[in-house]
Amino acid sequence: MADSTTIDVAQGEISRSEAKGKAPLLATTHQVFSTTKAMEREDNKGGYKRGVAIFDFILRLCALTAALAATATMGTTDQTLPFFTQFFQFQASYDDIPTFQFFVIAMAIASGYLVLSMPFSVVGIVRPHAVGPKMLLITFDTVMVALTTAAAGSATAIVYLAHSGNSSANWLAICQQFNDFCQKVSGAVVASFIVVVIFMILVVFSAIGLRKH
Amino acid sequence: MADSTTIDVAQGEISRSEAKGKAPLLATTHQVFSTTKAMEREDNKGGYKRGVAIFDFILRLCALTAALAATATMGTTDQTLPFFTQFFQFQASYDDIPTFQFFVIAMAIASGYLVLSMPFSVVGIVRPHAVGPKMLLITFDTVMVALTTAAAGSATAIVYLAHSGNSSANWLAICQQFNDFCQKVSGAVVASFIVVVIFMILVVFSAIGLRKH
Repeated sequence: MADSTTIDVAQGEISRSEAKGKAPLLATTHQVFSTTKAMEREDNKGGYKRGVAIFDFILRLCALTAALAATATMGTTDQTLPFFTQFFQFQASYDDIPTFQFFVIAMAIASGYLVLSMPFSVVGIVRPHAVGPKMLLITFDTVMVALTTAAAGSATAIVYLAHSGNSSANWLAICQQFNDFCQKVSGAVVASFIVVVIFMILVVFSAIGLRKH
Repeated sequence: MADSTTIDVAQGEISRSEAKGKAPLLATTHQVFSTTKAMEREDNKGGYKRGVAIFDFILRLCALTAALAATATMGTTDQTLPFFTQFFQFQASYDDIPTFQFFVIAMAIASGYLVLSMPFSVVGIVRPHAVGPKMLLITFDTVMVALTTAAAGSATAIVYLAHSGNSSANWLAICQQFNDFCQKVSGAVVASFIVVVIFMILVVFSAIGLRKH
């Protein structure tokens, strides 16, 4: 892996020095035999992969925004109804329901991962042929697809239950009472699905970047 | 894409005919200049990628088994309690809860996809350097990671609720009454998480297969 990276860098430098009109000093016998046309094609491929890497970085920024929005919306969800009985004060908060706690934790992890992955994405822009960072990103992106989808899916199941209830299990809909609560939670779920879709696109993009020439 | 496949096949044939001690008939000038050592390395890479492709096929078989088990277990879950009141006959079936319906549909789709993807996996074994089938598989595998995780996550949220209930929302645990129902559903959820993990491994494996040499 380290070998192939080094070779890529060397070839990149050769084509750059050729563009400046200098003689390729580092060229070995094998590299002399490979024609200039092949080198140009290599360089075009590099440009194409660099474009993909830049788009990858922008997508990560979008995903970070959506993930932070989902975390913040869910994390601040809290509604107290303006009436109470002798025994209960009617209050709904995200940490009453364990699924929503998991949602907040998973989205916070996804946000943290997105911040940490950005340097690797930048490496992909600077060195379009490097394989190591892309393998790392595609592996962890796949894990994040699973994590964020699990959070989004389970929260959706509970939100659906809160909206419409279930007569068979005798679970009543609580959204008539806690209307603001349900709306905020639904917004957070929508944001989390945006994060899921972006992570899926990122995996496919990394695969395109890994494709051999 | 089609070009690179053809070249790979030709190189493969040359090294095979060299192994038999015959002269490489198809070799062009460029291919003569590339050293035998490079060809051997190419061939080793091919063998290594073929091993990954075979493992990919075996994993797909395991995932298919787990997905079918999850579908069948959830789809046949039905429990009628041996007592009834004037108004209710106490019965629990998977299609009383929409989340479990989604679970069955998603797992059935995953099973169907796994069957359809097997020919492409076989192409990966026969032609280890072909990029097209691997790009196809990695894209749809990523979609399947999301689909199966959504099904597994949402079913988990509901099963957890059925087991332990939620006092804030006044949703009671139903597993005291419907014990068999809950156990079968939990089994199906465990099988679905096995499917999720296998799909994640498949994505990473396809990425390894796509890595350029």
